[in-house]
Amino acid sequence: MIDEIVKKILNGDIRAIARAISWIENDLPDKEALIDELFKQTGRAKIIGITGPPGSGKSSLLDRIIDLEKQKGKKIAVLAIDPSSPFSGGAILGDRVRMQKHATDPQVFIRSMASRGHLGGLAGATADALKVLDAAGYDLIIIETIGVGQTEIEVMNIVDLVLLVLVPGLGDEIQALKAGVMEIGDIFVINKADKDEARRVKAEVEYVLHLKNEDSKESSNPIFMTSATQNTGIKELVEGMESTLQQMEESGLLKERRLKRLALELKRILSSKIEDHVHHFLNTENNLELWLDQLAHRQAAPYQLISKKVKQVLKEFKKQ
Amino acid sequence: MIDEIVKKILNGDIRAIARAISWIENDLPDKEALIDELFKQTGRAKIIGITGPPGSGKSSLLDRIIDLEKQKGKKIAVLAIDPSSPFSGGAILGDRVRMQKHATDPQVFIRSMASRGHLGGLAGATADALKVLDAAGYDLIIIETIGVGQTEIEVMNIVDLVLLVLVPGLGDEIQALKAGVMEIGDIFVINKADKDEARRVKAEVEYVLHLKNEDSKESSNPIFMTSATQNTGIKELVEGMESTLQQMEESGLLKERRLKRLALELKRILSSKIEDHVHHFLNTENNLELWLDQLAHRQAAPYQLISKKVKQVLKEFKKQ
Repeated sequence: MIDEIVKKILNGDIRAIARAISWIENDLPDKEALIDELFKQTGRAKIIGITGPPGSGKSSLLDRIIDLEKQKGKKIAVLAIDPSSPFSGGAILGDRVRMQKHATDPQVFIRSMASRGHLGGLAGATADALKVLDAAGYDLIIIETIGVGQTEIEVMNIVDLVLLVLVPGLGDEIQALKAGVMEIGDIFVINKADKDEARRVKAEVEYVLHLKNEDSKESSNPIFMTSATQNTGIKELVEGMESTLQQMEESGLLKERRLKRLALELKRILSSKIEDHVHHFLNTENNLELWLDQLAHRQAAPYQLISKKVKQVLKEFKKQ
Repeated sequence: MIDEIVKKILNGDIRAIARAISWIENDLPDKEALIDELFKQTGRAKIIGITGPPGSGKSSLLDRIIDLEKQKGKKIAVLAIDPSSPFSGGAILGDRVRMQKHATDPQVFIRSMASRGHLGGLAGATADALKVLDAAGYDLIIIETIGVGQTEIEVMNIVDLVLLVLVPGLGDEIQALKAGVMEIGDIFVINKADKDEARRVKAEVEYVLHLKNEDSKESSNPIFMTSATQNTGIKELVEGMESTLQQMEESGLLKERRLKRLALELKRILSSKIEDHVHHFLNTENNLELWLDQLAHRQAAPYQLISKKVKQVLKEFKKQ
């Protein structure tokens, strides 16, 4: 069964790709053999992340970018990362509501992605989905997040190049949020550049980047002004993405990033597997109810309670 | 040293409280003994979470709630949960920029909270900070998140009562985001109720709640219309919070939630400790570079590579 789906994926079969991603989302056991098999055929695709606060027009911008990349004959896959509902576990933004016009285009694959309680988290599930799309022959894989929380920052750790989309006039709270993700952006996009405040936002970004680069001695990050609705600045942005990727390839930065990603991946797989069993262990631990009762009556303390157990585990763990 | 800071915290000493929270944020080893000691004195405070999309006016609303609760003579602590910068690890929203007017008020303690790479994550750090504030004698502890990502949802799992703040006219993306957190709200607040679309948002919320409650057979969640800027509906909201908490206390739901929280806490402590050592283990693993090289050249596959190692670890783990 694995051989068959692998073969179909390598042939770019859309239904097989979609099925593989569902396996990943639902953490089916077969997923691991599938990913391992596909992994051999990966490494060709360029992986772009698009992040930024809600309301910054990422979807419309992405829509324009897809138009341009399609004209260049590229096969494009988009993964929209959704904040999962903790109860129903469903992906909030269906593929249906986004970028509908590309939905029937064989050159473009669009899929929303959720993590249904997956212990490797959304970043782990996304990293696996990337391998499916890479092996399937997509030239460009774009990961879009909605929101800019910690999960989204983790997701941005698994791409080659991060586009951070900012926008004028979303109020103080958004401006503050923005600061938290400034450091993950490789390319900055001020979208809705037709708005009055756009130049002020650009100046702010330049100032923050100046502070950052003075510190790190890195070269400055490019900033692009776009308007997705008026279709301006998109061509320059796409060219900027390509030349930045080329520079990263020539300087060895791309290779370095991908190696770092592999190391992170090993860690994620190892800890998610261990954690899975830790949770199972605690759920089947006979003492759990007694412990909870003691805690509820303040007759025990949480760290102390766990401490002895952990020490046992770690002792065994370090022996090997 | 622990005894001394514990004593000060129990006396409500602000500087000791602030220091303890810094220990938690920075994951200092002394933190565990401190929390265990304080834990005995916890369980009195009521813990409210306020969440909702950026721009929904949570801070202004909170400001009004604080005003009312202060008039009732309550001691109030606010923890503003910030998305941490992955590089500098700093809290983005300083205490300075928010709710300045309460900053010098001895009845109100305001602090922003970040997780500087803390493996228990922001939820773990926040749960520990709650214990400090509870032991320090605050009657009401309010946790405010900015944004509505997965991390924020986890944070909302550690409170007694969740206020979900929604707002008209933030566009489709926000509306979609909203859906992901609908299920964690106990009380729904439509803020900026003076805006035209507010009634439509209320109808939408009622519809979603109707679907949810048909499913779960629970009683319906209260919805409040407020305007923080015009100071309307706040009194009703605060009364609603109190009566909901009282109902929860009488029905046993509050006790049940707190017990569930303790179980989650044990799991979090156990897995963060294990994970800490897993990372250490992989970082000091002699084969790591060889593994990465094999992966980079597609001569090995990630799941397979980790699999053998994990099996060893788990075998030992299950023996005890």
